[in-house]
Amino acid sequence: MQSPQSTESNLLPLVPAYDSILGLMPYQTGKPVEELTREYGVSDVVKLASNENPLGCSPHVTLAITEQLGELARYPDGNGYYLKQALADVNDVNVEQITLGNGSSDLLYILASSFAGSDDAIIYSQYAFIIYPMLAKMQGATGIEIPASRFGHDLKAMSQAVADNPNTKMVFIANPNNPTGTQLAHEELRAFVASVPRSVLVVLDEAYIEYSPESNNRALLDEFDNVIIVRTFSKAYGLAGLRVGYALSSVPVADLLNRIRQPFNVSRVALAAAAAALADQDFIEESRLNNQEQMRWLEKQFDALGLGFIKSHANFIMVEIEVEMEDITAASIHQALLEQGVIVRPLEGYGLPNWLRITIGVAEDNMRLIDTLRSILTDDL
Amino acid sequence: MQSPQSTESNLLPLVPAYDSILGLMPYQTGKPVEELTREYGVSDVVKLASNENPLGCSPHVTLAITEQLGELARYPDGNGYYLKQALADVNDVNVEQITLGNGSSDLLYILASSFAGSDDAIIYSQYAFIIYPMLAKMQGATGIEIPASRFGHDLKAMSQAVADNPNTKMVFIANPNNPTGTQLAHEELRAFVASVPRSVLVVLDEAYIEYSPESNNRALLDEFDNVIIVRTFSKAYGLAGLRVGYALSSVPVADLLNRIRQPFNVSRVALAAAAAALADQDFIEESRLNNQEQMRWLEKQFDALGLGFIKSHANFIMVEIEVEMEDITAASIHQALLEQGVIVRPLEGYGLPNWLRITIGVAEDNMRLIDTLRSILTDDL
Repeated sequence: MQSPQSTESNLLPLVPAYDSILGLMPYQTGKPVEELTREYGVSDVVKLASNENPLGCSPHVTLAITEQLGELARYPDGNGYYLKQALADVNDVNVEQITLGNGSSDLLYILASSFAGSDDAIIYSQYAFIIYPMLAKMQGATGIEIPASRFGHDLKAMSQAVADNPNTKMVFIANPNNPTGTQLAHEELRAFVASVPRSVLVVLDEAYIEYSPESNNRALLDEFDNVIIVRTFSKAYGLAGLRVGYALSSVPVADLLNRIRQPFNVSRVALAAAAAALADQDFIEESRLNNQEQMRWLEKQFDALGLGFIKSHANFIMVEIEVEMEDITAASIHQALLEQGVIVRPLEGYGLPNWLRITIGVAEDNMRLIDTLRSILTDDL
Repeated sequence: MQSPQSTESNLLPLVPAYDSILGLMPYQTGKPVEELTREYGVSDVVKLASNENPLGCSPHVTLAITEQLGELARYPDGNGYYLKQALADVNDVNVEQITLGNGSSDLLYILASSFAGSDDAIIYSQYAFIIYPMLAKMQGATGIEIPASRFGHDLKAMSQAVADNPNTKMVFIANPNNPTGTQLAHEELRAFVASVPRSVLVVLDEAYIEYSPESNNRALLDEFDNVIIVRTFSKAYGLAGLRVGYALSSVPVADLLNRIRQPFNVSRVALAAAAAALADQDFIEESRLNNQEQMRWLEKQFDALGLGFIKSHANFIMVEIEVEMEDITAASIHQALLEQGVIVRPLEGYGLPNWLRITIGVAEDNMRLIDTLRSILTDDL
């Protein structure tokens, strides 16, 4: 009898796309605060690594969750009746155009697994959300990365790539883009969508749309049935811990996604919390204003420290570590910040080894970041 | 310009396995109480349709959730560190053998999508959990249903089917089985696992194991690296509304599943609640005792009403509606119960049109069910 823990399994090479999956670097999540505390014994941790809302979430959420505490043993409403009604109103769409997800990443997974097989190509931009190439690998599909233009999507090149690859099934476009914070102009995006065959799904990932409401491309849905807009309650709405996202699409696409998603993919608590959060647009406005104000303050500080950054339309900013000494790198600064209890996101995995992505916090967090960063740079210089 | 809402999309025929997916009857969830109230204006609804725990969940869960209310904006720990530690202790496995899921159905989806492709066969029993054939369809795999033996799994026939179908990738076995409540003997199950090639995954779905602890087949994990045990916090633990399940497997299989699952598939609130629920085994014992006692009471009532039933090892019981009049059917009784505010589960979708599955409630719920059922049968006879 062989011990299953000590041997390579004979099962795994039989998995479709197994080599492709093993080639996946598992998604590196922002280090949880609890883990930093465990590893380094640091308390008073500031986490500016996962683009979470530093203001938390709407205070109305607490009541909504408390009302569910007696109902936890009951399955959620698999149709998400109330939340979908509220989303339909806010976004001026029909309920039948909405698919709910366990976070927007659930919807990205469902989209890829529904539409892309091993004969298909998926197109995305360099320096975009790292999940896109992972999804292509997971489906055994061909992932085609189009070089970025000034850290944003090069839509002309992406359009050309669709034309050059008739097996393209799906294009991912993040707007505003993560991790660079860049934004696309409406007309440019509309022209892109118009340029591709209607059989190519264009997935607009608007995870950060509440920080940049002028980026909203909801109008494209009325014109193109191959456009899908994916959004989340994890960023401005401050519900990352609960996992809720949604997709807006044409009715036939939503019908398909709703057949494929898991029947209870969004929890009872998450449904109630999201509906309460959606109803509190004052909180979103407050979050946007804090973000704007603190973004400006941080930009000034980076200027003063001589650090380059990319103008951002989201709730984070990408900073370049280009110090003229060999022993200072983005990686070493990331590590030094960690050891002092400040978590930011290194970007080697995105092909941006000289950059750090920093979430905009509240004033106190940002001052702590800048003070710590200044002391690291000063000590080393 | 065509209106995307009014036309059939040209996208959909391009979806791999599209015909197969359209052939899916969407999973019929137990009607939520809110929906019954909306549709029939019935208040005071008793839901005995989804095998939820009528005692709710451990009172410790409330505190665990309350502690998370200030942290909702933070992503969950994607590794589920604390919950996995607790599960490893309780189940005497290594942390590396555990995969967490957004309910156990998440794990069933991940398993099917990881291991089964269009060239593969998936084997399951007649009258077993309806998700299994749906998963086969969703993967475009061949689903092979083996006729049940006395409403339970015919393991000899299933073993023969594996031998006859060398492309078998996966076998689903529910123990206790849903919706019939039947149980398999350890030795019979072990003999089955030993009979199939090590390249065939045997997925033991133990969703109801806490109601039938003697059915626990944890020991098979030490002997066979192709066995995967899937469990849930949705049944005895009373957390259906929060969505948490887990899989126990060999380390290489868990490594693969953990690469394929979504990085934040279990919410922060669900992780904390599940850990608190797991620690309260007194609540599980209380739930089991209520279930046992009420099961016996219901069996007596069904006998008195002249209704046949299958001896059940879970928290539900399958009752036969075989009244000798044309206008009384399981469907008409289901409907009449609904209109009087009692929700049970019809089983046409399972190929059991003469049966109803009834979740064991607390004494008051069960009395309400029996009184209502008696009045329906009496009025009509």
